[in-house]
Amino acid sequence: MTFGDLVSEHRRSRPARVAVVDGDVRLTYVQLDDRVNQLANGLLAAGVAPGDRLAWIGQNSFRLLELLLAGAKIGAIVCPVNWRSSEAELVFILGDLDPAIVVWQEQELGHTALAARGAAAAAGVATRAVWLQHDGDASAGSAEGSYESLVAASSADEPDIEVHGDDPLLAMYTAAFAGTPNAALLSHSALIVQNLVIGRVQDITDETVFLNSGPLFHIATFMSTNATLHHGGTNVFVRRVDPEEMCQVIEAERITHAVIMGPTLGAIIERNASGVHDLTSLWPTGDPNDNRSTIVTPDSAPWRHRPGGYGQTEVIGLATFLALGSASDGKAGRASPAVIVRVLNDDGREVGPGEVGEIVVRGPAVMNGYFGRDELNAERSRGGWHHTNDLGRREADGSLSFIGPRTALIKSAAENIYPAEVEACIASHPAVREVCVIGVPDAKWTQRVKAVIVVRDEMTVTDDELIEHCRARLASYKKPSIIERTTALPRTQVGFIDRQAVDAGFGGGGYPGLLPSY
Amino acid sequence: MTFGDLVSEHRRSRPARVAVVDGDVRLTYVQLDDRVNQLANGLLAAGVAPGDRLAWIGQNSFRLLELLLAGAKIGAIVCPVNWRSSEAELVFILGDLDPAIVVWQEQELGHTALAARGAAAAAGVATRAVWLQHDGDASAGSAEGSYESLVAASSADEPDIEVHGDDPLLAMYTAAFAGTPNAALLSHSALIVQNLVIGRVQDITDETVFLNSGPLFHIATFMSTNATLHHGGTNVFVRRVDPEEMCQVIEAERITHAVIMGPTLGAIIERNASGVHDLTSLWPTGDPNDNRSTIVTPDSAPWRHRPGGYGQTEVIGLATFLALGSASDGKAGRASPAVIVRVLNDDGREVGPGEVGEIVVRGPAVMNGYFGRDELNAERSRGGWHHTNDLGRREADGSLSFIGPRTALIKSAAENIYPAEVEACIASHPAVREVCVIGVPDAKWTQRVKAVIVVRDEMTVTDDELIEHCRARLASYKKPSIIERTTALPRTQVGFIDRQAVDAGFGGGGYPGLLPSY
Repeated sequence: MTFGDLVSEHRRSRPARVAVVDGDVRLTYVQLDDRVNQLANGLLAAGVAPGDRLAWIGQNSFRLLELLLAGAKIGAIVCPVNWRSSEAELVFILGDLDPAIVVWQEQELGHTALAARGAAAAAGVATRAVWLQHDGDASAGSAEGSYESLVAASSADEPDIEVHGDDPLLAMYTAAFAGTPNAALLSHSALIVQNLVIGRVQDITDETVFLNSGPLFHIATFMSTNATLHHGGTNVFVRRVDPEEMCQVIEAERITHAVIMGPTLGAIIERNASGVHDLTSLWPTGDPNDNRSTIVTPDSAPWRHRPGGYGQTEVIGLATFLALGSASDGKAGRASPAVIVRVLNDDGREVGPGEVGEIVVRGPAVMNGYFGRDELNAERSRGGWHHTNDLGRREADGSLSFIGPRTALIKSAAENIYPAEVEACIASHPAVREVCVIGVPDAKWTQRVKAVIVVRDEMTVTDDELIEHCRARLASYKKPSIIERTTALPRTQVGFIDRQAVDAGFGGGGYPGLLPSY
Repeated sequence: MTFGDLVSEHRRSRPARVAVVDGDVRLTYVQLDDRVNQLANGLLAAGVAPGDRLAWIGQNSFRLLELLLAGAKIGAIVCPVNWRSSEAELVFILGDLDPAIVVWQEQELGHTALAARGAAAAAGVATRAVWLQHDGDASAGSAEGSYESLVAASSADEPDIEVHGDDPLLAMYTAAFAGTPNAALLSHSALIVQNLVIGRVQDITDETVFLNSGPLFHIATFMSTNATLHHGGTNVFVRRVDPEEMCQVIEAERITHAVIMGPTLGAIIERNASGVHDLTSLWPTGDPNDNRSTIVTPDSAPWRHRPGGYGQTEVIGLATFLALGSASDGKAGRASPAVIVRVLNDDGREVGPGEVGEIVVRGPAVMNGYFGRDELNAERSRGGWHHTNDLGRREADGSLSFIGPRTALIKSAAENIYPAEVEACIASHPAVREVCVIGVPDAKWTQRVKAVIVVRDEMTVTDDELIEHCRARLASYKKPSIIERTTALPRTQVGFIDRQAVDAGFGGGGYPGLLPSY
């Protein structure tokens, strides 16, 4: 069973169900499957072979889902590229993927995409790619080199290509903490299993109408897109986050599910303060304070009372769920039924409850590996476990806590110290509001541990008290020897504490753990 | 990820959770995993190798789940044998499986099991099997050749055997319509995927307390046992169906889920008419008429409002669910998200909506094949589809109807006629209460179609009217040319119309379609 089988099944079992809505476009599963077959046959005619990459440089569109399904039917790999990428980043990705096809978007992105195309050609990379424009004038279907003309010129017969469940289908670039980004390869089988899990967690059925508003180059939205398709629901697309358009579409299409981040949620609630839009299909409780700050829609499904968990793109979004388990001391819940989890020390040995180590994962929802990164893949999958590069801790009740990335590392003599672990300890002190731990250069010890903290209003804590707090809870070499106070820590655009900026601004010496290899 | 990983995960994530209850035995997941490891190491010491079969000739017991998990950890195949089998049937199965280990039960079954052991030895089959008694005096753990002594003598270290998800784990003999029974081999991966589906359908979580009362040699109960284990719930065992014991256990253990067939359900309700037992954990509605005739417990989970579907052991119980799809013309709903379904004619071509053909299935929940039946497996999996040997029809809305077994076949000239299809047509006439279609010998046409019918009280229908009813709905050669009326059709022990008895009693010439191969 492959991902392409899903739409072949739905055309038979749900022929009249609306599969996708995108502006004026509205396709049933029969129509979608016909177009997917046309696209797949067009791609074959354009020379696409199994294992080839199909890059999408565009915003949200029903055509991205078509591309994914067409790729699935012919054994190709589909990569939704971050459309916010700079020209230089696009050139890197084009060279890295060496795609057979690039589907690109004129609106908003045309200038950068075409500049990247030219720069790639000048650099001699991605030279075999066929570029297909999907929007603008080209969406009429007659333009040369357009997505729609390829679809229009091709047969709707099911292509006869043998595809295996273990073949990679979706390639998603993951955040590069250091060095270059890597594309995680997710197989048909992995996506299918994760669809079952996400379908249950988010209560997705063939009556679901899912709003694709979050960017589809991130797994957070795409995992719900896929689960909605799998269960025979309707995927509704808006090109990008726009609170007013989202209000209109939620009302018009009776949207039931969406992945909406806090700031957008606030903007929607503010814009609709007068109640001009009926958004009750999405938030049936009618209570504006009821869980709306969470990324999934609250409803009566048992796992959704406590949404969230720990995850990463490499495990298709979520590897643990907070709601799993009647009680949970940890902040990340328990393993998804599609994976098992261990916490290992640097020697690969399991650590006991209460001890911090690297979270490793095994199971059908884990990626095949990164595209074209044999050495890194061997490293990350050593011993049969996917090494997440994230630190975690199992609590006494068996639940898990996510501590922080393992890649930020301080070197003190022979010891590796993970700032995230020290930060979690300091943050547990009631007087501390924010904390970031850095390593300041030291002639004798290489680095010394320094904590930059923000103290809560109307509370106090001495340096000695904080150091003693850590000494009681951590191995002694991990405790900070220097503490500096500030009024606010620098943050990244999406709101995380900006570790590099703190390091640069408060006398740090960098993180030797940020290795170029990962 | 293997089936054995599930209990290794739960010992870490749910250490205090009760995994199994069986009489006085009550084991947490840590205790269960320790015993499973001990059993696995004991089996290795007894010479069990990957791919070897472990036969269970016993009734329901927590030790069967232990055997399954121990087999999973060492790559062996576990077969729960029908404990109602005769001595001759047991000898056949022993010869067919050639097990390395037979775990047997003294109580109720000892006489037949030991007789079969002797007969097998005399016949020179299953001669290498080590026989381990699990109950009676042997359950104290000191007896030679006992399950408990093997456990007690072995280490609780996790065995270090490489097992793959695609390896077969569970072997279940399926009903033999003709010829010999065959053991369907279900892999770790297939069981894991089906656990996700059944977990959602039956709303199984780690708060589930599942009563294993139905026989575990049938998938109907075992699929819920496995899903309960997978999600970290509690499996409670009773040796066999006993309404009074079940009432006591439901009350004492606060059972939330059970698979209970109609007659047993009636006996429980009757026995508890006075309300002496508090059964509200299982039936929280308090309404004795509310869906209790269904085999799963009614609750608020969306799929469970309309339980049931089409399935067979070869697809781990259920391949379609009635509840899937907001509307459903068909009587079997739509494909499970773990499979896709087609309806094919005898040439292997797909038939359109409204036409009857063989139901074929593909997907991760499908069996690996039958144990030791290479030729049959090639036949049943031709073209990449599992051929169910069952007839179905897709309705106009895309939903499916199950028509009946394909193995009963009438030959009329060059045409194959499936009695089930003709019966479904005749049964749709309002005056017909029961019907069975047979083939009477005919010199010219080989067989002629004859319908034996029972007419509803106070209703009438002429032969011509019935024949015309069929002519309007079926290809002409399928319509009956002879109609005979009777007051009641013979039935099998479990209540199906006894096709062979009708054939013998009403002048039939047998069913050429009942081939010895399946």
